[in-house]
Amino acid sequence: MSVDDERVARATLMRVVEPGVTGLLQHVADVGVVQTLEDIRLGRSIGEVDVAALQHRLSSASGAEDLAAAAQIGARLVAPGDSEWPTPLNDLDWVGRSSLGLWVRGELPLAEAVGRSIAIVGTRTATDYGLLVAETMAAELADLGWGVVSGLAYGIDGAAHRGALAAGGVTVGVLACGIDVPYPKGHHKLYSRVCAEGVVVTEHPPGSSPQRTRFLVRNRIIAALSLGTVVVEMALRSGARSTAAHAAAINRHVMAVPGPITSAMSGGCHRLLRDRPDTVLVTNAAEVVEQCGHIGDLAPHASEPARTRDLLGPMVARVFDGVPVQKRVPVANIARTVGVSVDVAAASLAALATAGLVECVEDGWAMTQVGRADRKARTGPDADQLALGWW
Amino acid sequence: MSVDDERVARATLMRVVEPGVTGLLQHVADVGVVQTLEDIRLGRSIGEVDVAALQHRLSSASGAEDLAAAAQIGARLVAPGDSEWPTPLNDLDWVGRSSLGLWVRGELPLAEAVGRSIAIVGTRTATDYGLLVAETMAAELADLGWGVVSGLAYGIDGAAHRGALAAGGVTVGVLACGIDVPYPKGHHKLYSRVCAEGVVVTEHPPGSSPQRTRFLVRNRIIAALSLGTVVVEMALRSGARSTAAHAAAINRHVMAVPGPITSAMSGGCHRLLRDRPDTVLVTNAAEVVEQCGHIGDLAPHASEPARTRDLLGPMVARVFDGVPVQKRVPVANIARTVGVSVDVAAASLAALATAGLVECVEDGWAMTQVGRADRKARTGPDADQLALGWW
Repeated sequence: MSVDDERVARATLMRVVEPGVTGLLQHVADVGVVQTLEDIRLGRSIGEVDVAALQHRLSSASGAEDLAAAAQIGARLVAPGDSEWPTPLNDLDWVGRSSLGLWVRGELPLAEAVGRSIAIVGTRTATDYGLLVAETMAAELADLGWGVVSGLAYGIDGAAHRGALAAGGVTVGVLACGIDVPYPKGHHKLYSRVCAEGVVVTEHPPGSSPQRTRFLVRNRIIAALSLGTVVVEMALRSGARSTAAHAAAINRHVMAVPGPITSAMSGGCHRLLRDRPDTVLVTNAAEVVEQCGHIGDLAPHASEPARTRDLLGPMVARVFDGVPVQKRVPVANIARTVGVSVDVAAASLAALATAGLVECVEDGWAMTQVGRADRKARTGPDADQLALGWW
Repeated sequence: MSVDDERVARATLMRVVEPGVTGLLQHVADVGVVQTLEDIRLGRSIGEVDVAALQHRLSSASGAEDLAAAAQIGARLVAPGDSEWPTPLNDLDWVGRSSLGLWVRGELPLAEAVGRSIAIVGTRTATDYGLLVAETMAAELADLGWGVVSGLAYGIDGAAHRGALAAGGVTVGVLACGIDVPYPKGHHKLYSRVCAEGVVVTEHPPGSSPQRTRFLVRNRIIAALSLGTVVVEMALRSGARSTAAHAAAINRHVMAVPGPITSAMSGGCHRLLRDRPDTVLVTNAAEVVEQCGHIGDLAPHASEPARTRDLLGPMVARVFDGVPVQKRVPVANIARTVGVSVDVAAASLAALATAGLVECVEDGWAMTQVGRADRKARTGPDADQLALGWW
């Protein structure tokens, strides 16, 4: 049997069986694609698989026709073992839910497109907040050289693809229908753009319609193609949770973006973070990369502006707090207010004068302009409630 | 020495030393309040404590006058061992930061007021979101019979007190100044209300002004009086983080409320949740009580409306998905679409008919009104992306 025959057989099998059916996939792993097809043709029993139904489907299936239909729109079948087959997909073997192959449309070799990529998923009925977050995070990931995988759905998925495209990054759309079926209809343009500038893939033969269960099964491909899955917004009941579940099952990073607790669309994210301690809270692309990337990808901590006063020791800082903003006072008063000896107060005031925060005028110590500005910066947000260093 | 003398000595010592100074507190634990005062009077060395400064302060300190000043506004001194002393405060001994006593204003015995209470803290420059969350959570906690402890500051603190008061609950305000010093000024009315309907406490003698470091030291009292601390909003730099740190140091629950990642005022909460795996994400009072309460306080999971379809097995549900919404079709077509045998399809359709979701009319199977409604509920948010049960 030639390589082409084998490929036709695989296409035929993908027309006959729904993806992700454990018992059948085990049989394929044991006897191969061609023999499995033969077993179905002859109505031989395959574990608990409903072979009669497959036999019925097989009667009208033609892998050759599907390959031709795909070729007509510039799509191809990529199978396990092919050079552009992404080996991470093989991790689905662990859970008995391997993929028989992917119909692929787009110029980039698939394995290359998903080499370093993150899945960004979430509700179709996203809020403006969720759309903004998904689009921004995808664009940031693209800027950092990461690909973005999603499901081409309305809401979060679409925003993720658009963000990646806007930043000139690579994005991969995984369909739950045929490679030639732009679904949902409103995303026809987006589908075309991802085909042209990124890659679109699906397990379903050309012409297949999207069906409810197919979205769930599709989600395992999204999870497996990526190093980690970020859920941006989801309600308590949401398919995005299944993507997260698939990701966890095959040892991918699961991340969730928090949002207002008053938003139902963040409820599923919060639930995930509460119920699944492995889920990591992320607030930007750098944190995603820190989680999924390698050493050297550490997210920089958000800048905390240093103030002159921060450079002082705790005792000197305490004395500085005892200096009134407007008045001039003798060192003894400051010492008494702060509760330190006059010697300590005097030494601290000298250090503060060196830093330009206070000055000694005839009858006492006073704050300088710089000191007042520093104090004022402090009496802005949370000024009277400094963070302790020890936690 | 009489009990009264001992009490006067304690009040005097509280006038002379700043709260939370580890070395001095160790000395008090070793030799007692009266002897410590004597040691200060005589200028004897006490660890690394600056005794000269304390000596200076002692020269003008009078515990009797402070007790009289407190009595004049109906406040009292509550000391360790007193019947209304909250024993959880003794946990501060573990970290060498015990409290020498608390000036207390309010009718409720302090130990009773904080018996089952939660600290709600956060930024002074709260957003509308933060204020709403703090007030709602405090009111919900009050409804559940829990007290609310906070710092009487602007922003989150004030909202927490107001929420508890509005729900007729107990609230405790912890000051960083004298019991007779309503601070901040804009909270004069709130201070009066908490005095009248709840309890206000402080470690500082009457007339003391609030000072920067005093807020930090005060925060350990807020943390110790409560079974757990909830941070509602805080910037990356915030004193609320110190309350959380104090709480963690003495084995209290630390919780944080998430918010929009686009809000700087939620940034500190997200940082806490990321950096401190012990921090629990909470979105309502029930979850706080589940965390800090006892068995029986489990938070009910937010309701996920059951639909008829949810009661069906996966195979029957799959067949249901294969029934068109408008058309009538023969069982063989449904079997082919779904990919099951005609027998399985027929049995599933019979089950669906029993559930009232489909019906058999002359030339085929069709969806009923009920079935369409069920399907429609599904095609609302995330309809095509069901959560998998297995995670």
